[in-house]
Amino acid sequence: MTEQTSIEIFELGDFRLLSGFTLPNAKLAYKTHGSLNTARDNAILFPHFLAGSPESLEMYIGEDRPLDPRKYFIILPGIFCGGLSSSPNNTPAPFNAGAFPATLIADDVIAQHRLLTEKFRIEELQLVLGWSVGGLQTYEWAVRFPDMVKRIASIASAPKPSPWTLLWLRTVIEEPLTSHPAWNNGFYTDLQALQSGLRRLGHGAAMTLPQVGFYRDEVWRSLGFASMDDFVSRFWEAFWLPLDPNNLVAQSRKTRAADPSDSGDLAAALGRIKAKTFVFAFTGDRMFQPEECKLDAQRISNAQFREIGGVSGHLTTFSLTQRDREVMDEIVREVLAS
Amino acid sequence: MTEQTSIEIFELGDFRLLSGFTLPNAKLAYKTHGSLNTARDNAILFPHFLAGSPESLEMYIGEDRPLDPRKYFIILPGIFCGGLSSSPNNTPAPFNAGAFPATLIADDVIAQHRLLTEKFRIEELQLVLGWSVGGLQTYEWAVRFPDMVKRIASIASAPKPSPWTLLWLRTVIEEPLTSHPAWNNGFYTDLQALQSGLRRLGHGAAMTLPQVGFYRDEVWRSLGFASMDDFVSRFWEAFWLPLDPNNLVAQSRKTRAADPSDSGDLAAALGRIKAKTFVFAFTGDRMFQPEECKLDAQRISNAQFREIGGVSGHLTTFSLTQRDREVMDEIVREVLAS
Repeated sequence: MTEQTSIEIFELGDFRLLSGFTLPNAKLAYKTHGSLNTARDNAILFPHFLAGSPESLEMYIGEDRPLDPRKYFIILPGIFCGGLSSSPNNTPAPFNAGAFPATLIADDVIAQHRLLTEKFRIEELQLVLGWSVGGLQTYEWAVRFPDMVKRIASIASAPKPSPWTLLWLRTVIEEPLTSHPAWNNGFYTDLQALQSGLRRLGHGAAMTLPQVGFYRDEVWRSLGFASMDDFVSRFWEAFWLPLDPNNLVAQSRKTRAADPSDSGDLAAALGRIKAKTFVFAFTGDRMFQPEECKLDAQRISNAQFREIGGVSGHLTTFSLTQRDREVMDEIVREVLAS
Repeated sequence: MTEQTSIEIFELGDFRLLSGFTLPNAKLAYKTHGSLNTARDNAILFPHFLAGSPESLEMYIGEDRPLDPRKYFIILPGIFCGGLSSSPNNTPAPFNAGAFPATLIADDVIAQHRLLTEKFRIEELQLVLGWSVGGLQTYEWAVRFPDMVKRIASIASAPKPSPWTLLWLRTVIEEPLTSHPAWNNGFYTDLQALQSGLRRLGHGAAMTLPQVGFYRDEVWRSLGFASMDDFVSRFWEAFWLPLDPNNLVAQSRKTRAADPSDSGDLAAALGRIKAKTFVFAFTGDRMFQPEECKLDAQRISNAQFREIGGVSGHLTTFSLTQRDREVMDEIVREVLAS
């Protein structure tokens, strides 16, 4: 049985963000599984996706799971605006709520690097892996700290979002919240009122994340839902309702700004990657299309690309079906065996 | 040069809707091109899509165009809730605005049939063709009046919407309007305020109707737009802003309810079709997926299916690019030559 661990907080002190603001008493939440060996070379970093937390993808960790804590020291870091690390919902004035300064994926990676080097004195990572926005962090890690990362796995992700994904982030994540009458520039006083916006966000996600065939084939039946509407309510609305609207909008804007070249030469930035690179894409994932992911892999030396079939599209990330779970497990095992 | 014609109104009198309500002094808008020949056998019926009008697809009509008014009498009928026919925005109390009764695709087809038989004494149609919601009407025509229709062409459509399309209609068309603070159950008094909902509707449509590759390849450049945002504003927002929110919501609900079997046996309903049937689908059109359209064709005797490639997806309907226009022209010519 895996040991029970809890969310920890790493104190970053006064953290200088790339936007130029200083975040006083900045905090990075994280969780670990397993133990760092004496050589300090058995660490895996596993950042999370948009609207996730350090606990979102623990299903991959366990003695009978692809990430075995008897062998690896697995670090699940948070991100700014994730709700547990410094975020709009937990930061005092002047940076509270709608006044929280813009953060970037690069800020998250710099904070995570400090955790790894200052707290754990880790100099080498066996693997950085991530789905979706976790993959954006993975690329940023491999570009920014190329000598520290032995392998990366980008799963349904990219170095930066595609034009369509920019449109999706604005339309599905931000607008149902920022156009809500209770939004008030992020200084809402009635969180209950904003729930209708979070529900609509869920509807947009339900519509765009699985493939069309997921609904045609009624795959939700195998997940225990009575109807498509039941699935939309109990899965999609339920997922977003507990989350803070400012945190979500800030995460979306951060994702839109993701760029490991910092508006420079992306090919040159990707050329700096030394890690053995695995790029996985899901058939029918509009967010990170297989053909676009394949092009990413071609710009990285020592990279392999593979497309994963199925009808779950971007939703495959969650390993909801038995098939998705098996495919995902196999991917992670294969990367670690390489 | 094609003659200039104008929108006409056919008076339906007190029209009994299938929902059980009677619409007093009901009106059906329509437009015609060309002349009915003495045998009254050269008519083509060309209904329009959601948010369209009898003038939306006149680009296909002309002496050098696929639908030649020298040869055919082309009738472009409206639909209830289309804004020119009886609709929430033009009907007096008690059926004004949010109190307009539910109408069905079948009501539209029954009204169109009355126009054709009572006004023009047409007993045979060479062709009924339609894109999207125009295609829903096309199927309803072929099932309801099988002896009257020689050919049908369903282009990016289906007999009834798929589960995903039901989700799309609710999420993209209805919710940005019905969740708007100015909505007031359809009895809005500030139409200007509702513009933000219409703009968000446009963003959802921009995100879902073209393929992802349309944005990756920046196809909007060839259409004269300076950026993706310029395209989203000047094309997508501009398309929806002039439309009445109640009309749109009513059209969306009508589309969701479309079913030529009236909740009965759809295969049996499609089995009644006698028309030579052409089913065209666009690659990457999530609304009417090629694989689903192919199944529709297999359920109809004497039906042909063809998938049309490209990156415009459902947007191919508008023939915006030169390539889309050529493909669409060819389809219509081929159907008429058969």
